[in-house]
Amino acid sequence: MIKLPQSIADAVENFSKLPGVGEKTAFRQIMGLVNWDPENLETLAFSIQKLSQIKKCVECGLYTETDRCAVCTSDERQDAKILCVVESISDLMAIEKSQNFNGIYHVLGGVLNPLMGIGPHDLKIDRLVDRVKKYNIETVILAVNPSVEGDATCSYIGQQLVGVQVERIGFGIPMGGSLEYLDPLTITKALENRKSINS
Amino acid sequence: MIKLPQSIADAVENFSKLPGVGEKTAFRQIMGLVNWDPENLETLAFSIQKLSQIKKCVECGLYTETDRCAVCTSDERQDAKILCVVESISDLMAIEKSQNFNGIYHVLGGVLNPLMGIGPHDLKIDRLVDRVKKYNIETVILAVNPSVEGDATCSYIGQQLVGVQVERIGFGIPMGGSLEYLDPLTITKALENRKSINS
Repeated sequence: MIKLPQSIADAVENFSKLPGVGEKTAFRQIMGLVNWDPENLETLAFSIQKLSQIKKCVECGLYTETDRCAVCTSDERQDAKILCVVESISDLMAIEKSQNFNGIYHVLGGVLNPLMGIGPHDLKIDRLVDRVKKYNIETVILAVNPSVEGDATCSYIGQQLVGVQVERIGFGIPMGGSLEYLDPLTITKALENRKSINS
Repeated sequence: MIKLPQSIADAVENFSKLPGVGEKTAFRQIMGLVNWDPENLETLAFSIQKLSQIKKCVECGLYTETDRCAVCTSDERQDAKILCVVESISDLMAIEKSQNFNGIYHVLGGVLNPLMGIGPHDLKIDRLVDRVKKYNIETVILAVNPSVEGDATCSYIGQQLVGVQVERIGFGIPMGGSLEYLDPLTITKALENRKSINS
């Protein structure tokens, strides 16, 4: 079997390390890249190098190029006195996309999982408690995904935050969902969380 | 909606240009890359920059870092006097992986398609005819995928190569395939291409 040029083999190997990319996908992507202009390759390479400058916000954990992120430095966001706890930055971005939350965030970076050795300190829950006091937060929304560990994390956080309103996001049928295809647990939750539509 | 750091947005934009990568996949990949060590980011970026050195072999069209590729510079391959015509470099690599072909190649880069304006010159069929003469090729295998355009390309190449044995790869049931799930055309081809198993 012939060998492709070393530079292609190297690029395929490096691309296979990306999340969700196997050797076949990497090969297909490199086959595409080989036809790019040198300038575009340069731009792509440069944008990857620049990622090393990304840090995590010392306050909430969101990605930033400075010490504190765009949310934590916004006066309007601070003044809302509402804080949303999320598991990951991807979850945070999903909430931002809904354009229905205008407070500050706290990124846990995971959920409590004693079997995996993830305790309250790993999730910076002490820092969350400090921030809630420091910024006089009135309401904490727990936007943690439903799972055994997520539920445990929520009740732990609830115990730590005394004198603050702690709420968990609602569970039920997703928009566009069909009862026919939903699991019994979701339907149970939806029945529990029913809402009156006449006053 | 808050904005992520510009370097993340730039990287996502550049990654979305990769084949088969949309904005969501690009974002997920960048979220992974952000956690990489600066050295690994540097290695990835460098391997992308180096792709600009890749050229196409002046003989067959395979990727190479020099003028002529690893196949065309192999005496053993030249001496086999057999040439395999493929549509793309990915198809070539698939044949190499089977480790059952030891001749030289010719990459068409597509198939004849008058509606898309792809004619014999775009596929370098004149160069193929020259190479067949120059290297005294005895057998030409057409490893072109089955399609209307592929069939037309094969019969065109067959007409151009006089005095050479021109063969098309076999069609039939793929290994591990099940008659139950195969299309009628494949089964028709398989019935046509049946082979005696006793002498």
